[in-house]
Amino acid sequence: MINFALLGAGRIGKMHAGLISASAQANLSYVFDTYQPAANELADKYGATAVESVDQILADDSIDAVLIATTTDTHVELIIKSALAGKAILCEKPIDLSTDLVRQCWDKIKDCQVPIQIGFNRRFDPTHAELQQQLNQGEIGELQQLIITSRDPDIAPAEYLRHSGGIFRDMIIHDFDMFRFITGEEATEIHAIGSTLIDPELAKIGDVDSVMLTLKTASGKLCHINGARRCVYGYDQRLEAFGSKGMLQSNNPRPNSVTKSTAANTDAQSVLNPFFIERYQAAYRAQLDSFINALIKKVPTSPSFIDGMKAQMMADAAQESLTSGKSVTIAKL
Amino acid sequence: MINFALLGAGRIGKMHAGLISASAQANLSYVFDTYQPAANELADKYGATAVESVDQILADDSIDAVLIATTTDTHVELIIKSALAGKAILCEKPIDLSTDLVRQCWDKIKDCQVPIQIGFNRRFDPTHAELQQQLNQGEIGELQQLIITSRDPDIAPAEYLRHSGGIFRDMIIHDFDMFRFITGEEATEIHAIGSTLIDPELAKIGDVDSVMLTLKTASGKLCHINGARRCVYGYDQRLEAFGSKGMLQSNNPRPNSVTKSTAANTDAQSVLNPFFIERYQAAYRAQLDSFINALIKKVPTSPSFIDGMKAQMMADAAQESLTSGKSVTIAKL
Amino acid sequence: MINFALLGAGRIGKMHAGLISASAQANLSYVFDTYQPAANELADKYGATAVESVDQILADDSIDAVLIATTTDTHVELIIKSALAGKAILCEKPIDLSTDLVRQCWDKIKDCQVPIQIGFNRRFDPTHAELQQQLNQGEIGELQQLIITSRDPDIAPAEYLRHSGGIFRDMIIHDFDMFRFITGEEATEIHAIGSTLIDPELAKIGDVDSVMLTLKTASGKLCHINGARRCVYGYDQRLEAFGSKGMLQSNNPRPNSVTKSTAANTDAQSVLNPFFIERYQAAYRAQLDSFINALIKKVPTSPSFIDGMKAQMMADAAQESLTSGKSVTIAKL
Amino acid sequence: MINFALLGAGRIGKMHAGLISASAQANLSYVFDTYQPAANELADKYGATAVESVDQILADDSIDAVLIATTTDTHVELIIKSALAGKAILCEKPIDLSTDLVRQCWDKIKDCQVPIQIGFNRRFDPTHAELQQQLNQGEIGELQQLIITSRDPDIAPAEYLRHSGGIFRDMIIHDFDMFRFITGEEATEIHAIGSTLIDPELAKIGDVDSVMLTLKTASGKLCHINGARRCVYGYDQRLEAFGSKGMLQSNNPRPNSVTKSTAANTDAQSVLNPFFIERYQAAYRAQLDSFINALIKKVPTSPSFIDGMKAQMMADAAQESLTSGKSVTIAKL
Repeated sequence: MINFALLGAGRIGKMHAGLISASAQANLSYVFDTYQPAANELADKYGATAVESVDQILADDSIDAVLIATTTDTHVELIIKSALAGKAILCEKPIDLSTDLVRQCWDKIKDCQVPIQIGFNRRFDPTHAELQQQLNQGEIGELQQLIITSRDPDIAPAEYLRHSGGIFRDMIIHDFDMFRFITGEEATEIHAIGSTLIDPELAKIGDVDSVMLTLKTASGKLCHINGARRCVYGYDQRLEAFGSKGMLQSNNPRPNSVTKSTAANTDAQSVLNPFFIERYQAAYRAQLDSFINALIKKVPTSPSFIDGMKAQMMADAAQESLTSGKSVTIAKL
Repeated sequence: MINFALLGAGRIGKMHAGLISASAQANLSYVFDTYQPAANELADKYGATAVESVDQILADDSIDAVLIATTTDTHVELIIKSALAGKAILCEKPIDLSTDLVRQCWDKIKDCQVPIQIGFNRRFDPTHAELQQQLNQGEIGELQQLIITSRDPDIAPAEYLRHSGGIFRDMIIHDFDMFRFITGEEATEIHAIGSTLIDPELAKIGDVDSVMLTLKTASGKLCHINGARRCVYGYDQRLEAFGSKGMLQSNNPRPNSVTKSTAANTDAQSVLNPFFIERYQAAYRAQLDSFINALIKKVPTSPSFIDGMKAQMMADAAQESLTSGKSVTIAKL
Repeated sequence: MINFALLGAGRIGKMHAGLISASAQANLSYVFDTYQPAANELADKYGATAVESVDQILADDSIDAVLIATTTDTHVELIIKSALAGKAILCEKPIDLSTDLVRQCWDKIKDCQVPIQIGFNRRFDPTHAELQQQLNQGEIGELQQLIITSRDPDIAPAEYLRHSGGIFRDMIIHDFDMFRFITGEEATEIHAIGSTLIDPELAKIGDVDSVMLTLKTASGKLCHINGARRCVYGYDQRLEAFGSKGMLQSNNPRPNSVTKSTAANTDAQSVLNPFFIERYQAAYRAQLDSFINALIKKVPTSPSFIDGMKAQMMADAAQESLTSGKSVTIAKL
Repeated sequence: MINFALLGAGRIGKMHAGLISASAQANLSYVFDTYQPAANELADKYGATAVESVDQILADDSIDAVLIATTTDTHVELIIKSALAGKAILCEKPIDLSTDLVRQCWDKIKDCQVPIQIGFNRRFDPTHAELQQQLNQGEIGELQQLIITSRDPDIAPAEYLRHSGGIFRDMIIHDFDMFRFITGEEATEIHAIGSTLIDPELAKIGDVDSVMLTLKTASGKLCHINGARRCVYGYDQRLEAFGSKGMLQSNNPRPNSVTKSTAANTDAQSVLNPFFIERYQAAYRAQLDSFINALIKKVPTSPSFIDGMKAQMMADAAQESLTSGKSVTIAKL
């Protein structure tokens, strides 16, 4: 049984609390949030203890792992503290918006030998994972091209976006990780273009809401990523892997399997899932299971801190390409 | 080159005229219709000669074949005349609404040795034919169950329906032929129920607009046919063949391959084809080619007169079952 | 919090134990099974108490509800005992293979006023339930025809089938309940045919493995049910509701959304779910939630004992039709 | 009636000859080919006259139009000659591999006032055209992103590719035209990357077989094109238009509508059409009809010579980007 402390009792923290409690191999001991009432409420619901300081958690030897679901700007500090306290860490992505800070963090914790997993939940999505598995089994021969579609249901408020680090660090970072997960290689080159077609306000803060990227790996594999901040028919997340012996597509799962035919059209299906908590529910559960199993079996957790850092570096490169209009070569670690 | 005379210049006759003209192996020589202006117009369009009497056509030795597309009540007389004149015959279904009359017709022509083909065009539909071929190649092992969906886009005017012979002889007769085409067997038993759910007027003339049938073959294969006189999303014609090693479905072909996703729903496709002339255009062409090729190669035409008669007997049995509420055993020929 | 006792620790009982334990509003207190080690193991896993007699459970006032997942022949006795002890009851279908015994059971318990729900889990399947809801909202106008496809992945061992009560009482009974759930009406007439196309052994025990049924309601709605004991591509469970303004189809949900295109074919998807525990997992969970909510809110449970009895009567009628070759009229209660 | 002369009796010329002959408004008068036997054979088949020199055709006043289906390197000369002779021209794409030569050609013919149409047949494909029409009707609001998939069934022989002008001028040129057709705008910027993943021989001649492009329009619309010289499941040609109010997808049409479910997988469909002559048969027919109608109604033909030149310039820019690794700005005409 793995004893968890949850740091952060917001929307995503609530979901994690429920998953930890439902797990047969985990126990939720503590909940911390800077907003105490939120911590109290969540702790009550799942029979955990709300605490006022993280130090109290880290000082408790019975705690095996912390799940960090606080705001991004607190991640690095909490990771360092937790690592130094010898706790296993499951931290929501991104590690930090600044790659420099991520590197500094790594320098401080790399000798701690604690298991650290970054919350790239999509690797655990049953459908994306199935595609990756079939690809690795050679079902379509050698991968040649990968197309990633990444469209959020709706654009976040301008206030949120102002501190988001830009579309690449905030949103497309998941797709950078998907690129690495599916191709099994690093990007050697990134090119990005973008437009503000959805919310003109974004232009004022130097951000875009519609992007298209091209990536290339050392072995010559090609990848397209398309991203949009608003998609009226729901949360559109697809993969298309094209190989020497065929194609695999990870299509959008559906809330139900009902189709409707009327005088207007035929075979119409429901709109897609509203957003990530619904769409990736099974992925979040599988992610937690994977983390717990790694702790119990004492095997490495994955995706690792380094995986988090590399996606960050790709986001930096994309941002640079968007600004410069040129392809950017990704530096090695 | 096969020289054709077309009998009947109505809607379906016009289509046949176009197909004959477009064929590289056929020529349209004559057009006959009791309504002379229709014959004139069609003959003009395709460079044929409009004639006032069928006898004139049958007396012309250069005519190889007649295509009978007149009203059903004239089929038997025209078949007999044409057969006695030694012409090959392609006759629209049904042969006649009265099975007795069909038998009498057969008695008069069976020794004529002229090729006769009945217009069960669906046997030539690329998609239904593909299903039958894959089934015969053993792709799904032994056929166990067959489901036929047969829904017209809209109900015909009451006046037409009054003389239609009822839904089984007018509409479902095509599905009876499909049953024989796909199973490769005869029905030993038929059960039919029906309702007037679309047009209450039908009840007054003892007809129904919604039917469900069950059929069984000597080897125990089971079949369901569902039929409706109105289908708001278009002309719905599907087959599902379930076998020991899998299932084949002949789905509705589409006018185009565009799908639309909006805030209302996703993957919506166009409505189906409006009706049989659009839906079965390729089938009518393939049917004509098959008839022409049989004449040129001097091999038997198919589906035969007997195929037409057997579908008729099944329609009679279904009508009897609907009236009696009991399963009806189909007599052998 | 509803305190449950589970009667029956077999395959389906194990699943129910997990669902009760995972529910935030339920608690698993007791497990009973005539095979004591099974009860012990299951009780251990979920922190419940294994007991040697049902009476011990019924005597415990803290128990609110019993979930009956024992063999069918013990259902009636356990229902009567539990009802007399004032316990709420969630009983797996069927109530009993003998409609007479079901009636006798009802006579003994109808005055007990305890909530009784029969385990027709498919009513709670997200996809079937969505179809029913859209139909009730008028999305396709008036229902005219219903087609139910019901194909098990593989035939059970002959020994099991010998005591199954026949395909209608054992397997198609679920579809009879679906018919009532979707049409919202009773069947006035049933006609059934069947064949042994899968396992010739069945003929020796007077059973069939392939069936096709036709049903009609008082308002004239028509229904086809097709059933097969073996379906090589998985557990095939579909609904097609055809109405005056369109069609709704409840298609098979998929284990994942991956499609594969190769030189052999395109858009191939995974085979269907292996069987009911996987396919209807969400349905079983929703069924339990519905039962628990009804108890907490003190509203009637549904589907009711009477629903169970009516499906049974339909199975009897189908069996009679299969034997007699005639349509059978369903008696009112 | 439009009198045609066909220049070029190769594979594509044969198809055009058939289409011209089948048209009710066109007549095939002459066939020319530098390989005389090919011209003779084709002329015989359709009742046309084979001629030994193009001049003979151009001198015949009864000839309204020439259809140029010769090798690419002869297009410019034949266009100039035909235009100066006052003939309407339908010329296969590309006009020439050298944009300089195309410009020179334009300078010589622009005052001739003869109708010239370039064979970008995909604009006439029923499914792509339907997407464009729905987009223009505002079905998905404002277009934001376009994704074009362009995968040939198999790579051409190295000898052919050596003189093809490279993948952009030979193959992707169609997709550049699609980009202009769907967006209704010009590209302001192009970025291209490529790899030789299919045939290593290509690297020796400085060409690639796998490409990914990014394009942007003046209004900020984004476009991805992915291309591959070999696609084992057939000729994969799709469009995805993403807009402010939804998405339209032009999926691959199918040779038939049969799906197969077996123990290996479900809903498997046939592989795609083998190549362009089968896939775009309806498009070639509609293209010819459009050309003929424009001549008869004396309205401008489309796509125009300028459309052909612009696609060429995009191909040049893509080639430059591939070589330089930089985004390339497209010059205005």
